[in-house]
Amino acid sequence: MKNLRLALTVLLGISMGTEALAQPDASFRPRARDIGLAPGVLKTGPLNAITDVEGVLVGQVTIWEGENVRTGVTAILPHDGNLFQEKVPGAIYLGNAFGKLVGYTQVQELGFIETPIVLTNTLSVWEAADAVVTHLLALPGNAEVRSINPVIGETNDGYLNDIRGRHVEERHVLEALRGARGGPVAEGVVGAGTGTVAFGWKGGIGTSSRLLPESLGGYTVGVLVQSNYGGVLSMDGLPVGVELGRYYLKNEISGPAADGSIMMVVATDAPASAFGLARIAKRAMLGLSRTGATSSNGSGDYVIAFSTARELRSAFESSGRTEGAPVLRNDDLSPLFQAAIEATEEAVYNSMLKAVDVTGRDGNRIEALPLDRLLEIGKKYNRLHPPASGR
Amino acid sequence: MKNLRLALTVLLGISMGTEALAQPDASFRPRARDIGLAPGVLKTGPLNAITDVEGVLVGQVTIWEGENVRTGVTAILPHDGNLFQEKVPGAIYLGNAFGKLVGYTQVQELGFIETPIVLTNTLSVWEAADAVVTHLLALPGNAEVRSINPVIGETNDGYLNDIRGRHVEERHVLEALRGARGGPVAEGVVGAGTGTVAFGWKGGIGTSSRLLPESLGGYTVGVLVQSNYGGVLSMDGLPVGVELGRYYLKNEISGPAADGSIMMVVATDAPASAFGLARIAKRAMLGLSRTGATSSNGSGDYVIAFSTARELRSAFESSGRTEGAPVLRNDDLSPLFQAAIEATEEAVYNSMLKAVDVTGRDGNRIEALPLDRLLEIGKKYNRLHPPASGR
Amino acid sequence: MKNLRLALTVLLGISMGTEALAQPDASFRPRARDIGLAPGVLKTGPLNAITDVEGVLVGQVTIWEGENVRTGVTAILPHDGNLFQEKVPGAIYLGNAFGKLVGYTQVQELGFIETPIVLTNTLSVWEAADAVVTHLLALPGNAEVRSINPVIGETNDGYLNDIRGRHVEERHVLEALRGARGGPVAEGVVGAGTGTVAFGWKGGIGTSSRLLPESLGGYTVGVLVQSNYGGVLSMDGLPVGVELGRYYLKNEISGPAADGSIMMVVATDAPASAFGLARIAKRAMLGLSRTGATSSNGSGDYVIAFSTARELRSAFESSGRTEGAPVLRNDDLSPLFQAAIEATEEAVYNSMLKAVDVTGRDGNRIEALPLDRLLEIGKKYNRLHPPASGR
Amino acid sequence: MKNLRLALTVLLGISMGTEALAQPDASFRPRARDIGLAPGVLKTGPLNAITDVEGVLVGQVTIWEGENVRTGVTAILPHDGNLFQEKVPGAIYLGNAFGKLVGYTQVQELGFIETPIVLTNTLSVWEAADAVVTHLLALPGNAEVRSINPVIGETNDGYLNDIRGRHVEERHVLEALRGARGGPVAEGVVGAGTGTVAFGWKGGIGTSSRLLPESLGGYTVGVLVQSNYGGVLSMDGLPVGVELGRYYLKNEISGPAADGSIMMVVATDAPASAFGLARIAKRAMLGLSRTGATSSNGSGDYVIAFSTARELRSAFESSGRTEGAPVLRNDDLSPLFQAAIEATEEAVYNSMLKAVDVTGRDGNRIEALPLDRLLEIGKKYNRLHPPASGR
Repeated sequence: MKNLRLALTVLLGISMGTEALAQPDASFRPRARDIGLAPGVLKTGPLNAITDVEGVLVGQVTIWEGENVRTGVTAILPHDGNLFQEKVPGAIYLGNAFGKLVGYTQVQELGFIETPIVLTNTLSVWEAADAVVTHLLALPGNAEVRSINPVIGETNDGYLNDIRGRHVEERHVLEALRGARGGPVAEGVVGAGTGTVAFGWKGGIGTSSRLLPESLGGYTVGVLVQSNYGGVLSMDGLPVGVELGRYYLKNEISGPAADGSIMMVVATDAPASAFGLARIAKRAMLGLSRTGATSSNGSGDYVIAFSTARELRSAFESSGRTEGAPVLRNDDLSPLFQAAIEATEEAVYNSMLKAVDVTGRDGNRIEALPLDRLLEIGKKYNRLHPPASGR
Repeated sequence: MKNLRLALTVLLGISMGTEALAQPDASFRPRARDIGLAPGVLKTGPLNAITDVEGVLVGQVTIWEGENVRTGVTAILPHDGNLFQEKVPGAIYLGNAFGKLVGYTQVQELGFIETPIVLTNTLSVWEAADAVVTHLLALPGNAEVRSINPVIGETNDGYLNDIRGRHVEERHVLEALRGARGGPVAEGVVGAGTGTVAFGWKGGIGTSSRLLPESLGGYTVGVLVQSNYGGVLSMDGLPVGVELGRYYLKNEISGPAADGSIMMVVATDAPASAFGLARIAKRAMLGLSRTGATSSNGSGDYVIAFSTARELRSAFESSGRTEGAPVLRNDDLSPLFQAAIEATEEAVYNSMLKAVDVTGRDGNRIEALPLDRLLEIGKKYNRLHPPASGR
Repeated sequence: MKNLRLALTVLLGISMGTEALAQPDASFRPRARDIGLAPGVLKTGPLNAITDVEGVLVGQVTIWEGENVRTGVTAILPHDGNLFQEKVPGAIYLGNAFGKLVGYTQVQELGFIETPIVLTNTLSVWEAADAVVTHLLALPGNAEVRSINPVIGETNDGYLNDIRGRHVEERHVLEALRGARGGPVAEGVVGAGTGTVAFGWKGGIGTSSRLLPESLGGYTVGVLVQSNYGGVLSMDGLPVGVELGRYYLKNEISGPAADGSIMMVVATDAPASAFGLARIAKRAMLGLSRTGATSSNGSGDYVIAFSTARELRSAFESSGRTEGAPVLRNDDLSPLFQAAIEATEEAVYNSMLKAVDVTGRDGNRIEALPLDRLLEIGKKYNRLHPPASGR
Repeated sequence: MKNLRLALTVLLGISMGTEALAQPDASFRPRARDIGLAPGVLKTGPLNAITDVEGVLVGQVTIWEGENVRTGVTAILPHDGNLFQEKVPGAIYLGNAFGKLVGYTQVQELGFIETPIVLTNTLSVWEAADAVVTHLLALPGNAEVRSINPVIGETNDGYLNDIRGRHVEERHVLEALRGARGGPVAEGVVGAGTGTVAFGWKGGIGTSSRLLPESLGGYTVGVLVQSNYGGVLSMDGLPVGVELGRYYLKNEISGPAADGSIMMVVATDAPASAFGLARIAKRAMLGLSRTGATSSNGSGDYVIAFSTARELRSAFESSGRTEGAPVLRNDDLSPLFQAAIEATEEAVYNSMLKAVDVTGRDGNRIEALPLDRLLEIGKKYNRLHPPASGR
């Protein structure tokens, strides 16, 4: 009946968005490094983005309709081929599993990811999963495929977005998949980050990367986050949350202030199997912590990790009994741990810095982290600097 | 857009099934006990069904359309109230997690199930999840709910069913939920068991229960399974698979013969929290093993357990800081372990015995376990007896 | 101070056992296959023992002193080299973790076993661990080693043995390690099985193996168990427990009847990494289930699995950044699952069949499973046969 | 034979330490708060120590012998009664499980801790476990006890300590248990922290606590750490590691710089069951991260959490079938998460600030974090202040 539904959609000429206009302009907002926020001790990749990991593609669709719809889709593709036929080693770490992420159990059992990874809002994960399956069933070579395990993450954008309306449709997901490409990644109020909130300020999509020196393998680690959580905001050690007077447990009130969620996607070209990737994924939580996350009960904090190493892929059709190749020794994972920590931390800062003010459902409004006040805090603690002119 | 889609469906008068005629008549087939297959040492409940656990409801919709559609939906409701507002303690055990079960991570993190449990086919879990959310969002009292964690299990009925067509629709799920009731449960070729295959014979839905003596608490354990897996069939110790010449690794061929999957749902009225339920759920796998399951790579074997004990429910809206009540001591879980093992084993036998021959997709045909030959095997080993006349 | 303690022991000429006389003669008792108990569909290896896996060694010391001491040590060595320098892929599965097994967490994190595996009684695991460390610290090449993770399993032999006395000493463990060898393995009342009880009858050490046909890889799976648990005894489907009137929950009494524990050690030469071994280990529980195990609260049921595949070993000193080699595909693990199930089941039967009556602590006495009555039950159900004369 | 060994020890008048003189004077070193290092937003308990949780006792024995022995024992007792008879709810979280912690699996399965928790060095955990069992077997009321699950943590002090000599003996552990008391806790170079190293500076024992406001339940969370790990040291956001030029991956070298380990013990009086405690324990890793931990491959990072809530204890002898009481709702755990994060972070700072320079094995020397340079860094970033005079 999927086909019928699709046919009806086409037949009746339903068109439900003007995404082209949807994404607010954030060009005037700096990334973290532009103001001297550069956590850690490792260098970034050339783009300082998850797409620094060769072959990784990102596609995003922002759904911005009327007064109440502020949501979207962000897709991350480990490679541009048929992922079902050429599965990549993967692992998912549950930082705090109050969430609806789809696809966890099979990834843990088999150690492979066989679809694009899609992020969206909480109540649209199942539609998105269905859409990813539609996409894969239709790919050349998949005509006899009868089992697919989509991996779909989510955070809850219900404050700014009419989440109960479940406005993400198959076509949005398909569009994000089709539009996926390498190169710079849009950050802030875009795709699955359109309606999210972090630490009481506008959250969103952010990305960052780290490049290990050749002496440590020369591998790249890239992270993309969908930030929508809380706690006591700290930025590379700056006590921003307390200075701005907005933080979890202020006035001895619990409330939902720290809730929300965050999806963290970690990519690497290092030859790490699922076993090693599970350990790398766990470190993203340590990077998250440095931003001041409480990982409160209501915050679904998930990390999805994969390797793009070709020799570790699993071919669906295979004549051999064995597969794979040598993998990184446990000891040699440590630099990747450090990289995952740093890139996750910085990806969160980018998600907030590139965000802009958004008004959404029922007039609810969330402001972007105020840049001027942030720079003042930096000045007080002898850190940071204004972005170079021209930005 | 969900509403639009629903509206269209109604408007265009689409009607897609003749479920009323779908379920084959299985009244001539016995349940396990009718022929002397009575594994274990504990007594059954009055119905020998999951519905022996007070308050548990089951609803099933069989989708049987044309030559190629042989699938369905089986819903298990821990109670007849608003499950989101009154969550039940729950746990999910991963026997072998090659499967798409939806909702695992949140149940493990929070220890509660907040929706009906729905079983269906592999590629329809996301549509079913969406449908359960539709159902819950619309319930009185849930107008402000923006996060729901549906629990949807599946097995792959792709041999008999056109699974790629994803023929389960929202309306089928809603119908199963609406039709859920206590009392006897239809078994065999029905609901989510319509197109399944077990040990090379027709599988399906089966159920059984055990009632602990008063001296051990007087609790009831009920199990419902959706059987679709393989191995070397053993029935209460009878080597049926080998005697019938149909078993995993026969002729030294691996093949997919043991693959498939099984969903096991375990209900109890015992005061077990998520912590204890996780341990009970694990024992269902032991019951499964006794049927000869290999739990092969391709078999997604999942157990979903919950308690109906009222004092352990979690109210969504609560004024207090604590919740719950005393729970069963660890030592006092052991009789429930035995009960879960026995009821799971017997539920599988019922799923196969109550099944009938089915022809489906592309003329594929699966026969029911031949009763006469089973009785012959029983005779050889001095076990079993024919069903009493009149059945 | 370890050295001082050792010196004192030597100085004072303390000698504390007459193990030479300890092990009762069990040559008159058959193994399972000798009477037609041959679960499963796969062939056994030549010895039908864990030592069928090339390179695996077993060493056992029985401690039988006076009226009250009935315990011992069973050591399994994955290879005869320096295990710390040449670690083997390994995994431990927790069937029911009410037990004191030492070494679990590191094996799970790193995926390697770096010491001999030693089985003993519950309260002697720490002394045994210490002894294994003594052994390894002293090996050539380990002079700078400052971290070792011994893997020590246990079951509770406190009914027959004065377990509170902790009679296992360093020298017993060292003797078991020194005496380890390939070839046939002593079963029944020997080593760590000296004082154990299973299903109310005498348990002990048992072993079995399965050899996959060449078409499935030709791999061997060997299992060794230390049986000390309970439930409702079933032997390849024969309802032995019920027929003998001795089973868990008989007379509606819970009691400790199903408690105890079982250690299962699974060896294979198949190229399975820790990831695959974890899945194989899990299947040993399915084999255990078929013997009628309840896996009751008090039963610590652990599975320790390792691969002897040379190309998957981890060298402590390594110049490279990667290690390992191609591993078995997930799908090709399934025949190994079947093998692990069958060999575990049969190892249990051997542990009981080769056991003899033992009187121990405070005159407590446990009888061996009565062979004549077992054969009668077999006759009733048209199964089994007496052992060939001459045994 | 344990008794014989003990007898010999007494008989020969062996005396092996001069612990009285062992612990260096650290009174001149400040705690974190004394210089303005006060991470987080919650208040501390009166002692800012794990002993702020009512009933918790700490006992420590420092083993400082000759040039090469620098180790010790730190014992944490959840209450001063017979812990085996009155078990406390507990959970252990594996941050990175490259370590030898004893007792994990049973705690995870049953949800209770039934012994004192003891910390020591890596190669002495088994001797310490044995000693704890000696202690418990001898307690009044435990005459029939035949199964005990000691919980023993460790870090590797092999750089300063002759760890291969395994100098921790039963008597040291028994002394630590006997000497356990409430009140202030010695920090730095003491007990299990005598020979540890953190971030290239002297680590050791540290403690801290948080007290929730009455509006959030008024619960206390106390943490004690044994710090012996590395990364890029950050102190409440101050980039101390980089400023001092000592950090992981400096000069693009991996090396063992970030390795080591840390044990974190989290106590609370909040009514959290094992299920909730597992979630609280996980947050200690987030606190650890804020100190700059890489959680590198070689760092065994473990968290042991327990509740002292009387109504949640499990009596070994019990007539009832149920036990326990209402527990904190999931949502109401969040403030405890924040408290665990903050107290862990501060406990680490205390462990380093209260440490002093130590010379040990083979003349190896580790300096305490230089206070003057720390204060300079603080000045540069407009933070911190010198300790008040008189300290």
